[in-house]
Amino acid sequence: MADKKLVEAITSMNEDFAQWYTDVVIKAELIDYSNVKGCMVIKPAGYALWENIQRELDRRFKETGVENVYMPMFIPESLLQKEKDHVEGFAPEVAWVTHGGLNPLQERMCVRPTSETLFCDFYKGDIQSYRDLPKVYNQWCSVVRWEKETRPFLRSREFLWQEGHTAHATEEESVARTEQMLNVYADFCKEVLSIPVVKGRKTDKEKFAGAVATYTIEALMHDGKALQSGTSHNFGTGFAEAFGIQYTDKENKLQYVHQTSWGVSTRIIGAIIMVHGDDSGLVLPPAIAPTQVMIIPIQQKKEGVLEKAAELKSTLINAGFRVKVDDSDKSPGFKFSEQEMRGIPVRVEIGPRDIENGKCLICRRDTREKIEVNIDELSAKIAELLPQIQQDMYDKAKKHLEEHTYEAKTKEEFEKLFAEKSGFVKAMWCGETECEEKIKEDMAVTSRCMPFEQECLSDTCVYCGKPAKKMVYWGRAY
Amino acid sequence: MADKKLVEAITSMNEDFAQWYTDVVIKAELIDYSNVKGCMVIKPAGYALWENIQRELDRRFKETGVENVYMPMFIPESLLQKEKDHVEGFAPEVAWVTHGGLNPLQERMCVRPTSETLFCDFYKGDIQSYRDLPKVYNQWCSVVRWEKETRPFLRSREFLWQEGHTAHATEEESVARTEQMLNVYADFCKEVLSIPVVKGRKTDKEKFAGAVATYTIEALMHDGKALQSGTSHNFGTGFAEAFGIQYTDKENKLQYVHQTSWGVSTRIIGAIIMVHGDDSGLVLPPAIAPTQVMIIPIQQKKEGVLEKAAELKSTLINAGFRVKVDDSDKSPGFKFSEQEMRGIPVRVEIGPRDIENGKCLICRRDTREKIEVNIDELSAKIAELLPQIQQDMYDKAKKHLEEHTYEAKTKEEFEKLFAEKSGFVKAMWCGETECEEKIKEDMAVTSRCMPFEQECLSDTCVYCGKPAKKMVYWGRAY
Repeated sequence: MADKKLVEAITSMNEDFAQWYTDVVIKAELIDYSNVKGCMVIKPAGYALWENIQRELDRRFKETGVENVYMPMFIPESLLQKEKDHVEGFAPEVAWVTHGGLNPLQERMCVRPTSETLFCDFYKGDIQSYRDLPKVYNQWCSVVRWEKETRPFLRSREFLWQEGHTAHATEEESVARTEQMLNVYADFCKEVLSIPVVKGRKTDKEKFAGAVATYTIEALMHDGKALQSGTSHNFGTGFAEAFGIQYTDKENKLQYVHQTSWGVSTRIIGAIIMVHGDDSGLVLPPAIAPTQVMIIPIQQKKEGVLEKAAELKSTLINAGFRVKVDDSDKSPGFKFSEQEMRGIPVRVEIGPRDIENGKCLICRRDTREKIEVNIDELSAKIAELLPQIQQDMYDKAKKHLEEHTYEAKTKEEFEKLFAEKSGFVKAMWCGETECEEKIKEDMAVTSRCMPFEQECLSDTCVYCGKPAKKMVYWGRAY
Repeated sequence: MADKKLVEAITSMNEDFAQWYTDVVIKAELIDYSNVKGCMVIKPAGYALWENIQRELDRRFKETGVENVYMPMFIPESLLQKEKDHVEGFAPEVAWVTHGGLNPLQERMCVRPTSETLFCDFYKGDIQSYRDLPKVYNQWCSVVRWEKETRPFLRSREFLWQEGHTAHATEEESVARTEQMLNVYADFCKEVLSIPVVKGRKTDKEKFAGAVATYTIEALMHDGKALQSGTSHNFGTGFAEAFGIQYTDKENKLQYVHQTSWGVSTRIIGAIIMVHGDDSGLVLPPAIAPTQVMIIPIQQKKEGVLEKAAELKSTLINAGFRVKVDDSDKSPGFKFSEQEMRGIPVRVEIGPRDIENGKCLICRRDTREKIEVNIDELSAKIAELLPQIQQDMYDKAKKHLEEHTYEAKTKEEFEKLFAEKSGFVKAMWCGETECEEKIKEDMAVTSRCMPFEQECLSDTCVYCGKPAKKMVYWGRAY
C-alpha cells in the first residue's frame, strides 16, 4: 500500500503539466510553501542542488577573473531613480522599507530587486584611473520582486541568484565580457545540467531595463514552453553617465566606463525539473545530483546485507562518488519510489542472493535500464555509467529541443504552428516593436531571442509582411 | 615617497585603537562605506575572508550532520510576536516593509533580524512524528538590525551570518547539540583563526531573547576589550510551546520538541583584525588567508626575474598553497607595504642576485623574521612555515589573553583593576540580575560569561558581598 502512495500522489505530466510540476517540487522535498505570501522555504534537497550549482558556477566565474563582493540589500529611493529606464522597469515591483525600529525613515528604501544602482554608486567612488579597470565583481545573494502570481523556483517574491557587475575601459571589452559570461552559462547548462540552450539577443522590447543589449540563453521545457535561464547585459555607458562613473585614461582624459551585468537564479532549478523530470518525479543529471548513487539493501534484516551495503558505500565514496544507503525500515519498493521521486541517478540493489553470487543490480533513473554487475566491478561500472547518463540526458533533451523547434514562413504557418504545436517557432521579423507587440497581443506569444546563429527563412516579416531584418525564436514562456 | 604613504596613512594602535581599526579595514581594502546608512560594501579582500570562513565552518557543520536550507527574508508582524521575550528583544531594532510595489501591505513584515520564528513556523508543519526528528538545519544569509551606532564588521545594520536551528525529541539531545556547536565554534577559532576563546554561559541578563540558556565564546582583542564571537542557544520547549511544534513519540503521545539555535557572523572578521593586527595593518592566520604567499620580484625588469617569480608561483601552487606574484609597476618597497597592510602571511623576495646564488628571501608577516632559503627548498620551507605561523599566532594571542586576565577578590580590587587595566577580570558573583545591573551602571562593565571551567576565588560576591554562586568573566565589550 505504502509503496504506491508516493507515486500515486503525483499527477501525470500529460494530464496536467503545471500540477505535475507542483507535485514534484513538493514530493521530492525541494521546497515547502511558507506563511510569507509568495515566498518559499528551500528544503535540504532543494538547497543542496543550489549549493552544487553555486560551487560549479563560482569556479567557472573565478577562472575568468571574477571576484566576489557583497553590497547592501537596501537601495535608497533616490539611488534607484538615477537611471530612468531602470527605475521604470523595477519600481512597480519592489518592496519598500519605511520604518527602522520605531521610527519612520527620512527616505524610504527598497529591498534590492537587482543591484546595478548599488554597484554604480560604489564604482563611482572606487574607479578613478584606467589602472582601476576592469572591475569584474559578482555577488551571491537574494533579491525581492513583488510578483502577483508566484510559482516555486519559477517566480517567487524572493529568490536566490548571483549578479555579476563589471566596469571596463572600452566598449570592446564590455561586449566581450557580456558574451563571455553568456558562454559560461551556456556551457554550464550543457556540461553540468545536461540542458541544451538557444543563445541569442533579446529584442528591444524584451531587454533589461537600462541595457543597450541583453543576451539570453533559452531552454525548452518538456511541455514545449520556453524558460529564460540566464541573461547577460551590455549597458554601454548608460549607467556610467547617469551615475557619473568616469576614469582618466592614459592620455589623462576623462572617460565614462562601459558596464555589464549578468545573472542566473534559482529559477534554473525549475529548468532542471521541467527538462528532465518524468511521471515518477525528478531526474537529476549526475554532475549536479547531491546524491549520485542510492544503495538499497534487499531483505536488510538478513545477516550480512547491511554490512555489505555499507562496504559498497565506502568503496564508492572512496572512488569519489556521492553515495547514500537507505537503511530505513521502509519496504524496498517504497525506497525505490523515493529514490526515483528524488531523481537520484543510479540505484544499486543488493540482497542476500546477490551477495552469494557476488553480484548486484544497478538501475539507471533516466532510462530505467537494469544492469547486473559483479560486486568487484561496481566502482568501475559507476565511473563509466555516470558520464554516460550525463551525456544521454543531454542528447535526449537536445532531441526534444530539435523536434519541437519549427519554422514558419507565412503568417498562416505561424498561427497554425502555435495553435497545434508547442515549442519554438523560428520566423523572420521586421524588427519593429509595434509588430512584436501585436504578435504578443494576438497570439500570446513572445520573442524569446534573435539567435546568434541567424538563418534567412524568407525576405519578409512573418506577421506584417514588411522586409525582414532578423530571424527570431518565438514561443510561450514561463 | 609613495612607499611611505600607505604606512603613514594608518594611525598607531596605541595612539588611537578605534581609529587604527577603521584605518586598517579601509586601507587593507576589506570594506568601503556605502551611501546606505549603517551598511557596508564588503570588497573582494573582505569577502574572500568570509568565503574561507564559510567553507571551513560549513564543512565542520556538515560533519556533525547539519543540512543547509533557505527561509524567506521577511517575517510577518504576527509571526514575530508569537514568542513574548523574543519580540521584546528584537522589535525595537527591525526594519519594516510596509509596501509591495505601489500597494500598502495588509500586514507589515520585518526583514529578519534572526529566523527563529520562521523556522518554528516551518517546523510546526514539517514535524509530525519522532521519525521526523532531529532536524538539524542551518542557513547562510544576511540579517538586518537597525543599529544607531555602527562600525564595520562589528556592528552594522546588515550583516552576513549563518544561523543553525535544530529540533530534537529530548532535552538531553538539545543540550548536547547546543554544546556541540559551541565547541565547533571554539575549535574553529583556535585551529583556523588562531584565536583563543573563553567558553561559558551567559547570565540571564545577557542571554538571547527567548532562550533558556545561551552559551558563548568570548575573545579578547588587542586593546583588552572583549568580543562575543559566537553564540549557541538552548531554547528548551519555549518556542515549541509558543508555536505549537509537537510530535507523537514512540508511545503515541504528543510531545513538544526541544530546540536550539547558534550563529557566527561577519563580526568574527573584526576579531581577526583586532586580535592579530599591528601598526603595519592586518596579520592573517595562514589557514584563513585568501593569499598565503606573495612573491615580490626585485629589479623585475632585469632578464629572468619575472620568469623565475612565475616559476616559483606555479611550484608553490602545485604544492597546494594560495600564491600571487605582485608584478605591478610599483616599487618593491611599496609592494612590501601593501603585502603587510593586507596581512599576507609570507612574502618571498626574489631578485637577480638571488637567482644567481640559487637563493630567495622569505619574510614572515607575523614576526617580520627574514629567512634565506635555497630556491630548491622553498616549497618545503613554506610547508613547514605556514603551520608554524598558525601556531605561533595562536600562542601569542593566548599569552595576551592570559596576561590580560585578572582576578578580583574584593570590590576594591575589582574597581582598581578596571580603572587601571584593560582585559578580563574574573570575580565571584551572587547570581542576581540586580547586582549585575548595578555593576554595569557603576562601572560600565558587563558580564561576559560564566566560564565552563569554574574556580572558587572567594565565598562572597565581589560587588554586593552576598554569598557567591558563580565565577564570572567581566569586561568591557564591543
